[in-house]
Amino acid sequence: MLVGLQLQPYKGCQAAGPGGAPSSLAAMGRSAFALVLALALAVCVSPAERKCLLSGSWQSDTSSRMVVFTLEKDNRFSGFYLPGPAAGNSELLTSPLEGSQQDTGLAPQPTFSFTVNWRLRDSGAAQATVFLGQCYVDTNGEETLHALWLLREANDSPAEDWKATRIGTSVFTRIK
Amino acid sequence: MLVGLQLQPYKGCQAAGPGGAPSSLAAMGRSAFALVLALALAVCVSPAERKCLLSGSWQSDTSSRMVVFTLEKDNRFSGFYLPGPAAGNSELLTSPLEGSQQDTGLAPQPTFSFTVNWRLRDSGAAQATVFLGQCYVDTNGEETLHALWLLREANDSPAEDWKATRIGTSVFTRIK
Amino acid sequence: MLVGLQLQPYKGCQAAGPGGAPSSLAAMGRSAFALVLALALAVCVSPAERKCLLSGSWQSDTSSRMVVFTLEKDNRFSGFYLPGPAAGNSELLTSPLEGSQQDTGLAPQPTFSFTVNWRLRDSGAAQATVFLGQCYVDTNGEETLHALWLLREANDSPAEDWKATRIGTSVFTRIK
Amino acid sequence: MLVGLQLQPYKGCQAAGPGGAPSSLAAMGRSAFALVLALALAVCVSPAERKCLLSGSWQSDTSSRMVVFTLEKDNRFSGFYLPGPAAGNSELLTSPLEGSQQDTGLAPQPTFSFTVNWRLRDSGAAQATVFLGQCYVDTNGEETLHALWLLREANDSPAEDWKATRIGTSVFTRIK
Repeated sequence: MLVGLQLQPYKGCQAAGPGGAPSSLAAMGRSAFALVLALALAVCVSPAERKCLLSGSWQSDTSSRMVVFTLEKDNRFSGFYLPGPAAGNSELLTSPLEGSQQDTGLAPQPTFSFTVNWRLRDSGAAQATVFLGQCYVDTNGEETLHALWLLREANDSPAEDWKATRIGTSVFTRIK
Repeated sequence: MLVGLQLQPYKGCQAAGPGGAPSSLAAMGRSAFALVLALALAVCVSPAERKCLLSGSWQSDTSSRMVVFTLEKDNRFSGFYLPGPAAGNSELLTSPLEGSQQDTGLAPQPTFSFTVNWRLRDSGAAQATVFLGQCYVDTNGEETLHALWLLREANDSPAEDWKATRIGTSVFTRIK
Repeated sequence: MLVGLQLQPYKGCQAAGPGGAPSSLAAMGRSAFALVLALALAVCVSPAERKCLLSGSWQSDTSSRMVVFTLEKDNRFSGFYLPGPAAGNSELLTSPLEGSQQDTGLAPQPTFSFTVNWRLRDSGAAQATVFLGQCYVDTNGEETLHALWLLREANDSPAEDWKATRIGTSVFTRIK
Repeated sequence: MLVGLQLQPYKGCQAAGPGGAPSSLAAMGRSAFALVLALALAVCVSPAERKCLLSGSWQSDTSSRMVVFTLEKDNRFSGFYLPGPAAGNSELLTSPLEGSQQDTGLAPQPTFSFTVNWRLRDSGAAQATVFLGQCYVDTNGEETLHALWLLREANDSPAEDWKATRIGTSVFTRIK
């Protein structure tokens, strides 16, 4: 549970599942552990407690990955976005992201938005992507991010602006 | 030129130094001021100087308005977005926006992105809009913002997510 | 009024406006013409009569043009789309379009959709654009088409599909 | 292999010549038929033969289904679209679709587009969806349709047009 905490500071209510019990617990009496487990589950099973924070590591359905650092107290966040192999021939490099999410006190399944300002292999036209999505939490506490994105490339004039923007969707799941 | 300076801190070739048009100018002879003005304009007409900052007041082609405060030094900005009469029957209220733009030192026609987290008349589902665009400057120094936007409404479950997102374009011109 | 009828088979109720009177009518008595005009206006002014057919010639806000042939009886249509100078450096050529609109008997301001299958200067990847829009008619009988479009380029594999699609808007007015 | 041929006239490696499974085969010995079948399959495994026709039954990732009838010779098609349970509370009913695809002689992984003109439970505002996508065929001959769609609702005036259009993606797999 502690391993990789730097990258995955938030693990929802999944701490108590099979395989999640840290080996040091083996020294504890099984009954004591069961009690702790039961208490943990009691808390976690409450729907009101299933909240989604974007902090952590995520993988998209097109094999992109992103790391979101711990949320600041105003629900802003920063992190990094790693294009997947699908973008392997492109000039997009690992790039910084910045965004914010709804306060989970107001919405356990918060909407979020963030911008990736792309670092490019060559000095081509500037490119940026905005993601707008919502984090859904299922009854097992599993989080899924559903987002649409717009990708814009800088142009020289308004006459060329019509072709500036691409669009698509991404679904992210937490890397555990 | 001084009217509404609070709302429009950036006016294209704003040659005046920190503090805008200094009140101490009142003490200067008019001819001296005219000279300074002429020099300032001479500099401003240079194409290389035509840079676009989002700071100021803007009106969209659907009569929405927005006010963007002075850029912070990392090119971030905040402000307010006022829905137009076209959204008059809707529940959207004047709402805060936050975003960033490319550094004009790198790109005189910078790309930008910002998010509006909508304040609602009634406590309905959360809504947010992301704008992704570019500021174009014509040979007269007139700035125009071309943007696409995504508007998302919060949903209860992934099954309803398919209908969450609207899309459109906006063109903004500076309110003078 | 007859000039260019091949390209503009439908002219709404605008036949009687100033300047629209064909010169051959000059031989007619003015009073007779006035009577005809009055009758025409009587019919045309009725809001219920202001219906929009896509048939005719249209110009977009990005200087693209399109010609839509007379509607077939099931409200399908075909025609041609001419990319504007904004696409001048691109490889898109004048290309066939096919689509349909709502029956104006059901909706005087009908929605419509059409697809342009692009003919390319060079044998590049296939490209197609779909337009989805609505024809609005103002109180003067002027028609405006508001549409969003998706432009897709063929790819080799699903892994590349994420970057296949561009998006934008077009506003068309009738060429008179 | 012959079961359900009406709904699924294309099943990947449809080796049979014009007319489908020829009735004259009935006269042939079973072993001869098996030989022909084996040869046909041998041919079908060739990647060059893996072509995608939209004809058949498809299921989307949001549990919508569609049935596309046999392609007309100009690569046009018609069919029906059945909204999934995700749209269960909505007023969308099974509705007709019409579209076309690239000729598979030119592109084994053709692009396609089609429009669904929605039939509504109640007489609300007209709604239509356009899909624009590409059919990808993997090395096993499995076909997948990747599409973006726009859904538009009719409005009363251009002032309301800004909120007319929703957007999303769909991935379809063949129902076997």
